[in-house]
Amino acid sequence: MIEYRNLRIALLGAGSVGSQVARLLLENRDELAARVGAGLDLIGVAVRDIDAPRDTAIPRELLTTDASTLIQSADIVIELMGGIEPARQYIQLAIASGADVVTGNKALLATHGPELFDAADRVGAQLYYEAAAGGAIPIIRPLRDSLAGDRVDRVMGIVNGTTNFILDRMDVEGDTFENALAVATELGYAEADPTADVEGFDAAQKAAILASLAFHTAVPVESVHREGMTTVTAAQIDSAQKAGYVVKLLAICERLVDPETGIEGVVARVHPALISRMHPLAAVHGAKNAVFVQAEAAGDLMFYGAGAGGVETASAVLGDLVSAARRHVAGGPGTGESTHANLPILGIGAVITRYQLTLIVTDKPGVLAQIAGLFSEHGVSVEAVQQTVATASAAGSASESDALTATLVIVTHEATEAALAATVAAVSANDAVVRVESVLRVEGETP
Amino acid sequence: MIEYRNLRIALLGAGSVGSQVARLLLENRDELAARVGAGLDLIGVAVRDIDAPRDTAIPRELLTTDASTLIQSADIVIELMGGIEPARQYIQLAIASGADVVTGNKALLATHGPELFDAADRVGAQLYYEAAAGGAIPIIRPLRDSLAGDRVDRVMGIVNGTTNFILDRMDVEGDTFENALAVATELGYAEADPTADVEGFDAAQKAAILASLAFHTAVPVESVHREGMTTVTAAQIDSAQKAGYVVKLLAICERLVDPETGIEGVVARVHPALISRMHPLAAVHGAKNAVFVQAEAAGDLMFYGAGAGGVETASAVLGDLVSAARRHVAGGPGTGESTHANLPILGIGAVITRYQLTLIVTDKPGVLAQIAGLFSEHGVSVEAVQQTVATASAAGSASESDALTATLVIVTHEATEAALAATVAAVSANDAVVRVESVLRVEGETP
Repeated sequence: MIEYRNLRIALLGAGSVGSQVARLLLENRDELAARVGAGLDLIGVAVRDIDAPRDTAIPRELLTTDASTLIQSADIVIELMGGIEPARQYIQLAIASGADVVTGNKALLATHGPELFDAADRVGAQLYYEAAAGGAIPIIRPLRDSLAGDRVDRVMGIVNGTTNFILDRMDVEGDTFENALAVATELGYAEADPTADVEGFDAAQKAAILASLAFHTAVPVESVHREGMTTVTAAQIDSAQKAGYVVKLLAICERLVDPETGIEGVVARVHPALISRMHPLAAVHGAKNAVFVQAEAAGDLMFYGAGAGGVETASAVLGDLVSAARRHVAGGPGTGESTHANLPILGIGAVITRYQLTLIVTDKPGVLAQIAGLFSEHGVSVEAVQQTVATASAAGSASESDALTATLVIVTHEATEAALAATVAAVSANDAVVRVESVLRVEGETP
Repeated sequence: MIEYRNLRIALLGAGSVGSQVARLLLENRDELAARVGAGLDLIGVAVRDIDAPRDTAIPRELLTTDASTLIQSADIVIELMGGIEPARQYIQLAIASGADVVTGNKALLATHGPELFDAADRVGAQLYYEAAAGGAIPIIRPLRDSLAGDRVDRVMGIVNGTTNFILDRMDVEGDTFENALAVATELGYAEADPTADVEGFDAAQKAAILASLAFHTAVPVESVHREGMTTVTAAQIDSAQKAGYVVKLLAICERLVDPETGIEGVVARVHPALISRMHPLAAVHGAKNAVFVQAEAAGDLMFYGAGAGGVETASAVLGDLVSAARRHVAGGPGTGESTHANLPILGIGAVITRYQLTLIVTDKPGVLAQIAGLFSEHGVSVEAVQQTVATASAAGSASESDALTATLVIVTHEATEAALAATVAAVSANDAVVRVESVLRVEGETP
């Protein structure tokens, strides 16, 4: 084997992932050198505060607050600071200095991805980001390389561990959202301010990254349709269970033809949805993540693992580091984002899926026929209806408070979002309908 | 983008996978060229019989029976003939002619892998084989690249679709092995002679490939401990169900320390085993495959998808072809097998796992204490015992035919294979034991 000079590695950030990366780099020096064909020298770790407490000890002489100088003497820069600035300008500096970059910064990639990939492309630098979508789960390489000869139709992922932990607990333990969130916070799965997780912002960033990669098209995070999961109730989960479904917060990216315009494009969306308990994603419990991919030739694939966690995510970072280092030793094809397909981004209105509607109606003869008529008028075909025993209306409107009500759970066949919205409007306006309790999308096959 | 001359692709074999590769190469020409940065010209398809019926039409002018001439004018050779010869000599010819090779030939790699990787290494040629283990499932790249900075402890896979179909049907439908096999044959999941599948030969080949890759060590197929699944009975599956387990044919590759010698090494084994119904592998139904990987930093990962099928496997072949082609355009790190760890291969005796024993015993006071004593004498600790209602012995030995018997189902804590074998011998020799009905390994966590 040709002897190669050691490569100089700079690390930016020593939080939960960064400190694990530093530890593994130092502990597994010899093994990594054997795999790369060159030594990997950690030349410095840029931090804001040298004296801040850390998960694992980093030799003090490696710590520096001068990120810029560190970056300029590195062959490969690992950015694990998070946030937009100064991460963005540091990555730009690294690229300008001729270094390759490994990052796990999903917020940055989802907002400034194209700018960074362009900058890297111009100088032939590489930008690796396996840790930015799916934590430890290898999903970037399979999408970019393994499926490079195939055509992806759909990516459907559980890409946020906090919300999966909460929904799984509501499903398995019958907990309320509030209780499950409290447990998640106590166990460290949820942050003090859980907004980014429970409102789907984190999942939307990952959806933007996955959609861009899967469809060879730049998909900005602003174009991702996003609904949080704070409105999911124990009652919805219970009713889903009875019908053979489970509620998951899904990030769905799909290539489809807009039924209005006939234009083929990409839609990315994040929202709670029902999936069959027989679907492989239904078996993803606790804080685990999984990405289900449907490709034209390969069929159904799923990638499962830890979507977060310091040491788990460090594994993905080190995998990228080895790839970057091997390329330093041997040259090779770049990581440049392929946007050759450059499909238009379509709105949520173009989506065709199934829906579950829960309606509270007055319990009178002919109501079901009336409601069914409204669905059919708007071109939405009903797959199944379940009517539960009538009970005295508890929280109905004043005029209905004495009447008996029934709960109708209706699952539709596939319909456009537009047709469904028109149907919901018509149903809401109907005198026999006390209220529309919930509308949830149903994804995947019927159980 | 730099214009690059078109690459010349030769295909050997036009069976169920080969004909799909030819179709996709021709149909997706433009898309593949955009992804590679160079056109991919299919210059010929070598077959034994030009006029043989094929799944999909291949233009007649591409077909040839002269594989050698075709190989020598190709940049990349795709070998999908299967079998050892002449596949081996054709791949050697391709390497000698300076071509890169993509193969899906697991039998060849499991037996002649090191020889072929060495030959490729010597001339700097590349050998890709994503389709050889796990069909469409991207598992080679994740193990080789994504986990390159991590340390794999264990790979546990359902890597044979035929046997998973049979066991899943026995589990879900309560079918016997014979009936389930008949259905698998009728549906085309099992071949007329199912030996390679049901006796675990196919799974052992994949285990050898996965173990070599995961542990950076050449693991020949002959060193894989192999037990088939023809002896699994409906009664075993029923009893597994009651205890919260499911029976799967598993290929397990692990890095462990031999308890006798203290030497760290690799064991690869294929056998039926019980796993908890809560384990992600338990949710792998029908003919699907999945590979569960445990790595030091990444934790638990799983890769799921179609393990066989013409068009599905073609997806993996095309992914490899794009990688090989990109490397032709841009150069880059090779695919050479990393065997730097070069761990010793240990025998099945070094394995430490749990076991479920089903014993038929005479139903007399004190028998359980006697049996428990035998386990304890041999250092095997008992986790759980289930004794079913005594029934009149049906098929016991003559002397026991009138006595009442009971069935003891014993699940042990972790023990070595050696300790377990000694325990089974002692139990079999005990007067109170009518027979040892079955011994099955238990893998993964307790439900």
